[in-house]
Amino acid sequence: MLTLDKIYHASYVLKDVIRETNLVKAPAISDNCDVYLKPENLQITGSFKVRGSGYKISQLSDEEKARGVIACSAGNHAQGVALAATKYGIKSLICLPDGAPISKVEATKGYGAQVHMVPGVYDDAYNEALRLRDEKNYTFIHPFDDENVIAGQGTIGLEILNEMSDVDAVVGAIGGGGLLSGVACAIKSLNPNVKVYGVQADGAPSMYESIKAGKPICLDSVSTIADGIQVKEPGEHTFKYIQKYVDDIVTVSDDEISSAILKLIETQKMIAEGAGAAPVAAVMFNKIPVQGKKVVCIVSGGNIDVTILSRVIKRGLLMTGRQQTLCIELQDKPGQLVAVSKIIADRGANVVSIHHERASEGTDVNGCYLRIVLETRNFDHIKEISDALTNAGFKLV
Amino acid sequence: MLTLDKIYHASYVLKDVIRETNLVKAPAISDNCDVYLKPENLQITGSFKVRGSGYKISQLSDEEKARGVIACSAGNHAQGVALAATKYGIKSLICLPDGAPISKVEATKGYGAQVHMVPGVYDDAYNEALRLRDEKNYTFIHPFDDENVIAGQGTIGLEILNEMSDVDAVVGAIGGGGLLSGVACAIKSLNPNVKVYGVQADGAPSMYESIKAGKPICLDSVSTIADGIQVKEPGEHTFKYIQKYVDDIVTVSDDEISSAILKLIETQKMIAEGAGAAPVAAVMFNKIPVQGKKVVCIVSGGNIDVTILSRVIKRGLLMTGRQQTLCIELQDKPGQLVAVSKIIADRGANVVSIHHERASEGTDVNGCYLRIVLETRNFDHIKEISDALTNAGFKLV
Repeated sequence: MLTLDKIYHASYVLKDVIRETNLVKAPAISDNCDVYLKPENLQITGSFKVRGSGYKISQLSDEEKARGVIACSAGNHAQGVALAATKYGIKSLICLPDGAPISKVEATKGYGAQVHMVPGVYDDAYNEALRLRDEKNYTFIHPFDDENVIAGQGTIGLEILNEMSDVDAVVGAIGGGGLLSGVACAIKSLNPNVKVYGVQADGAPSMYESIKAGKPICLDSVSTIADGIQVKEPGEHTFKYIQKYVDDIVTVSDDEISSAILKLIETQKMIAEGAGAAPVAAVMFNKIPVQGKKVVCIVSGGNIDVTILSRVIKRGLLMTGRQQTLCIELQDKPGQLVAVSKIIADRGANVVSIHHERASEGTDVNGCYLRIVLETRNFDHIKEISDALTNAGFKLV
Repeated sequence: MLTLDKIYHASYVLKDVIRETNLVKAPAISDNCDVYLKPENLQITGSFKVRGSGYKISQLSDEEKARGVIACSAGNHAQGVALAATKYGIKSLICLPDGAPISKVEATKGYGAQVHMVPGVYDDAYNEALRLRDEKNYTFIHPFDDENVIAGQGTIGLEILNEMSDVDAVVGAIGGGGLLSGVACAIKSLNPNVKVYGVQADGAPSMYESIKAGKPICLDSVSTIADGIQVKEPGEHTFKYIQKYVDDIVTVSDDEISSAILKLIETQKMIAEGAGAAPVAAVMFNKIPVQGKKVVCIVSGGNIDVTILSRVIKRGLLMTGRQQTLCIELQDKPGQLVAVSKIIADRGANVVSIHHERASEGTDVNGCYLRIVLETRNFDHIKEISDALTNAGFKLV
């Protein structure tokens, strides 16, 4: 049974394990309300997960500690377990699917875990972890559906109330539900007037659907840029606590999450992963009734792969008119490329790439296509260039 | 004359204008020394510049305040002047070259300045600002070569010593030299044993060359990713102070700066602009003798254009083996693309783009080239794929 006592105890125990993360004012996120961030992306290991695993591991018996712990994760949970185990001087083994990003594997090893790469996908790694647990008598550390893990995550709720006693609402992402179960329990136990909202990705709404159905539901497939909350099925415990303590759950799209990541980069100079940016997206896109309120968004982590980050930024550039692809139908005669290039250069746009293609189906037999990717200033700038090309007799397709 | 008194006074005056930025431990930057960051990217306006302009403006006479101030900048100085003027309730006019990034124009307006777009480049905007100063009797706020501006920047030195009295070395970027003139004066006046190092970009080494020559030198042209320190000529005052107080100046390449930006993203979840990352690059790439020392790198700003950030990340992906372009010579017969695609897919690489080109010069008449951009895990992964293609009889060119 999760109690406020246990969360307080976790808070005391974790003092030597975690970093203090202070609230950061973020006025650029919304004109409608007063937004603050709880920056767990700046937490040690780059995510809140170390709180849950830290408390869980601290509460093991000496015998369990002597045998060591095992976990399965390709992400933040792996690093949290590794660091916490190392802090308590015990052995940790992490099973990872063999396609896991090398950066995460290296980080997990760096925190002192032994890493076991398992051929296949997450489920294969999970089954192998359970097999090894039974064979070697390791303690399995569940990423969310464990009351001590949940109590550890709940310490974030205590810290928020401690730093801002007049907060009106707290918004956090839900994957398995461990984070928000703990946070909501802490907050509602101390002050039931504070609203607690959960956010899921449109492409992985397992808790959202489960709450609607009144029982845990397992989705067939999930897909989102926010890999940290890409979870098919809530936990048994977490479902119960979310149902009991959370006021409402909303969902956000990958485009909204990408916009929130970009906004945090541009205005807060801060890197968030998809799951960490989801609550910010929910506030930015008015998914939650918090007008005029003092709102804390939990930025749960910052471990975003640079490849993904690069795609998010590219998407953001397109969405804000700072990059554009133009496809121009040309007559196949000399001088056409010069004319097009000059029109673009005169208007101060920067060419990223050019692709020149002849006689595809659909073009007339003497024609060809020119596909140009441009760096532009904004949508007006794009229009100015398009108009100039059209006025010069070029056909944009 | 710049004195410690004046810097102390600036520190007192600025309390209501600026944010406190506390040192951040950054162990991942170097194994050789103990690195801390002074995160002025988290300063209000996203850069330290508001300190200098804030103090300068605070010290104007009532008459000067009533007439208003003018400045010329496409960057951080513009935002600093705008914010400081607004805080003191006075009018500010900023001249910008009309090619300036829209994001910077909007930010400057957002802090309350009137923006005057001048056709041409920086020099045109600068001349127009001087003309308006003379015509309208505005006070011109120089971006660096002004003793009150320098005193404002020097408050960073006081804060560093205040927070870490046993620091061994402080590293900061030099563009015009205002930041490091102030910081070095503050630090050396209080504790001459603390080393102060300056960092410039390889492509804009104006102060480096000037110090070597013993007099201010104007470079013909400058070019670097770090636009905040892309300055052709040191100031008269700043040259004198850098010569007097700074222990040494080193330079870093754009690739080194890009690596530092990426490192700060991946390990500190923090966005720095090129100038802000330059001191971190100098420490990362062992340009400065600080082995075993306690070093503070001043991350002077975080206002990097997202387009540039996107290029920096791309460069970083290439440099760490996470993206690779392969060019394969194919026989022009059916099934070749299938075979290549299968080899790549079986090894878990992700295709970003494919370009298939027939009968260029240099290929045999039946041949064609396939150019594939891949997302890969690391250099070993790239080698594994290349080897598999070669073993299957494909020729990589």
